[in-house]
Amino acid sequence: MMETETLIERLLLERLDRISGDSCPRGLADAVRYAVIPGGARIRPKLCLAVAAANGNSDPVLAGASACAIELLHCASLVHDDLPCFDNASERRGKPSVQVAFGERLAVLAGDALIVTAFETLGVAAATAAQPARLPQLISVLGRGVGMPLGISAGQAWECEDEIDLSHYHQSKTGALFVAATGAGAAAAGADPGPWRRLGECIGEGFQVADDIHDATSDREARGKPVRMDEVLDRPNAVRELGLEAAVAKLKRLVEAAMDSIPSCAGETVLRALIREESKRFLPKKLARMAA
Amino acid sequence: MMETETLIERLLLERLDRISGDSCPRGLADAVRYAVIPGGARIRPKLCLAVAAANGNSDPVLAGASACAIELLHCASLVHDDLPCFDNASERRGKPSVQVAFGERLAVLAGDALIVTAFETLGVAAATAAQPARLPQLISVLGRGVGMPLGISAGQAWECEDEIDLSHYHQSKTGALFVAATGAGAAAAGADPGPWRRLGECIGEGFQVADDIHDATSDREARGKPVRMDEVLDRPNAVRELGLEAAVAKLKRLVEAAMDSIPSCAGETVLRALIREESKRFLPKKLARMAA
Repeated sequence: MMETETLIERLLLERLDRISGDSCPRGLADAVRYAVIPGGARIRPKLCLAVAAANGNSDPVLAGASACAIELLHCASLVHDDLPCFDNASERRGKPSVQVAFGERLAVLAGDALIVTAFETLGVAAATAAQPARLPQLISVLGRGVGMPLGISAGQAWECEDEIDLSHYHQSKTGALFVAATGAGAAAAGADPGPWRRLGECIGEGFQVADDIHDATSDREARGKPVRMDEVLDRPNAVRELGLEAAVAKLKRLVEAAMDSIPSCAGETVLRALIREESKRFLPKKLARMAA
Repeated sequence: MMETETLIERLLLERLDRISGDSCPRGLADAVRYAVIPGGARIRPKLCLAVAAANGNSDPVLAGASACAIELLHCASLVHDDLPCFDNASERRGKPSVQVAFGERLAVLAGDALIVTAFETLGVAAATAAQPARLPQLISVLGRGVGMPLGISAGQAWECEDEIDLSHYHQSKTGALFVAATGAGAAAAGADPGPWRRLGECIGEGFQVADDIHDATSDREARGKPVRMDEVLDRPNAVRELGLEAAVAKLKRLVEAAMDSIPSCAGETVLRALIREESKRFLPKKLARMAA
């Protein structure tokens, strides 16, 4: 995995360097870099690359660009989520949020620029890729993950409705980008994204449950941002609904369902081992035994 | 031109219908539609289609999708420009702005979703286009128009700097999307966008001067939003800097420069006549004689 992590950071840095030249206003260039580096677990781009590898990775340029684009879209969503009109968050990844460090205006623009550069990343890569004909599908897969009717923007917009469709809400706000990650990994390698949808859904839902557990059980230092926020903001949280033990059991079931969903492919065994290994990091250390 | 106008509205409506299904939260779907329809002059997509036609329009599907994407990106920039942290505008196109009609949160999300759907439009079109190999360049051309370092996001971000680079500011904030419009029109038809850059720059700068003249001389009803705002907000304005007569003369020179910049191509004569005709609409009627 170390190689993959290095690759992801290198691709992100290359992309940031490319758009942050002297002609760019300094504040925007700095805000965008701050939003992306240092990152979190980079779980979505890792998943994308793992699925591409499991399918033979016949176009590593497209797979790398897809992973990079997915992480940029994820960072964009965090920056906009933290805006005063949404979560009004002051901390993110253990440091002040973009809106606090750079102001609200640059937070709006940094999010916009990150969305644009995510799609540009794919276009630039396709210009030198071995299989540029895969580009239209990659764009559609990523677009569905972040746009309307069922991507991140739509997920966030459910919070503005009087009646929330909880299934669509979770599916859009958290699940959609994981589905895009597995789908883009498959599509970049020339495989049909359809059969990989279920893996993205299971990992996405598992990640949401793990995040709920973290929010309910971690301290502020380990979390890098305020904790017990779901309780404070009266948001749905698996621990509040089910209790801790049942939430951990649900997570375990979702990891198993993820395993079971993996379509038959050349790199099936490696991918299975990798997901089992990575999923252990989902939980705070003190709870990992409960899920074992 | 009527046919072109009908085509643009039809493409925009088709795109909106496609992303606004029952699974989409109603508020977001309504806000996005409100931001796009009814529109303004649709000058950028018209320009894009005119350049594609001048170059033989060998892939009308890609040309239409490019025009549609450019207008969606333009609408996105208006919605975010009107946010409380920027212009805090209450009116746009003769009706309440999106942030007033739907609230700040849906205005942020509608802008995000419009950016995403613009790029998705290209991906979806390329899947059935005659020349999908043109897609990478189209994405790059559009990305440059709205992203970093010199697209709309960057242009707006100059307003957050202590010292504004005025040339980069105007070039990014207004010019870049016109350059993307001519470039995408050329690229969709298989021509090199490079030689079409100057046309986009001249029309973009001319449009900015015309906009300044409108702000300084129109009444609120004709303008569809408050007037004399450049004076109120102490923003650069050609009429304030040069006086009305010199500003009109400058606009006239820019239209001539636009004509002179048109590269040799099959549809050169038609394009020239069309730009002359369209540029007459740049000015309020009472001033059109001054520029004749």
